[in-house]
Amino acid sequence: MIRSDLKTREEAPRQGAEGAPDAWLEIEPEFADALLGMEVGHELIVITWMHRADRNVLKNHPRSDPSRPLTGVFYTHSPARPNPLGLHPVTVRKIDGTRLLIGPIEAFDGTPVVDIKSASTRVDV
Amino acid sequence: MIRSDLKTREEAPRQGAEGAPDAWLEIEPEFADALLGMEVGHELIVITWMHRADRNVLKNHPRSDPSRPLTGVFYTHSPARPNPLGLHPVTVRKIDGTRLLIGPIEAFDGTPVVDIKSASTRVDV
Repeated sequence: MIRSDLKTREEAPRQGAEGAPDAWLEIEPEFADALLGMEVGHELIVITWMHRADRNVLKNHPRSDPSRPLTGVFYTHSPARPNPLGLHPVTVRKIDGTRLLIGPIEAFDGTPVVDIKSASTRVDV
Repeated sequence: MIRSDLKTREEAPRQGAEGAPDAWLEIEPEFADALLGMEVGHELIVITWMHRADRNVLKNHPRSDPSRPLTGVFYTHSPARPNPLGLHPVTVRKIDGTRLLIGPIEAFDGTPVVDIKSASTRVDV
């Protein structure tokens, strides 16, 4: 689960790279072994379930800009989509047991994390 | 859902870029509007649920190579992991209604697709 200072839509930047904060990623202790080898500086893809997104939206104007053509959500990054999974490229800032300080990440406090992967495409991971 | 000629583990390359085939991605007709603007040549991230993966694995040797150190699955690309989501960067080869021919993709026939996003980081999508 994500523990962030981002509590409201008004606080949220439009995309992660535009001033998003760091946040704590809390992992259930039973999954501690899945962090073996994790180090500060590692780059990850964090996959979240954007629990506050509208799952009934199939098309919209990218970045909420009405001048952009209506586009199907399967070709955008809109949080609104049938299965609201979020992909967040982040860097590990700090490790405290089964809590990772990561960022930058635009995700509301309380967002469930469903998977974590190396962002590297190196063949050894 | 993925419709692929990959039916068995023996046929599967270790990673998508190493000789993986193209496959059909079949989308339920009710989600047709989510494909608005989709074109041949678009680059996508397809997110699958790797239904044949072992969900009880927390650490393993990357790429099944025992000479590599045991690593937690949250820092690898191993399909074995608690929530076996797969991230597949693909190109759209052909569009036939709500079916997309995409590739290359290492995913077994019958793999559920849970989300599709633009792979672009351009700000207009």
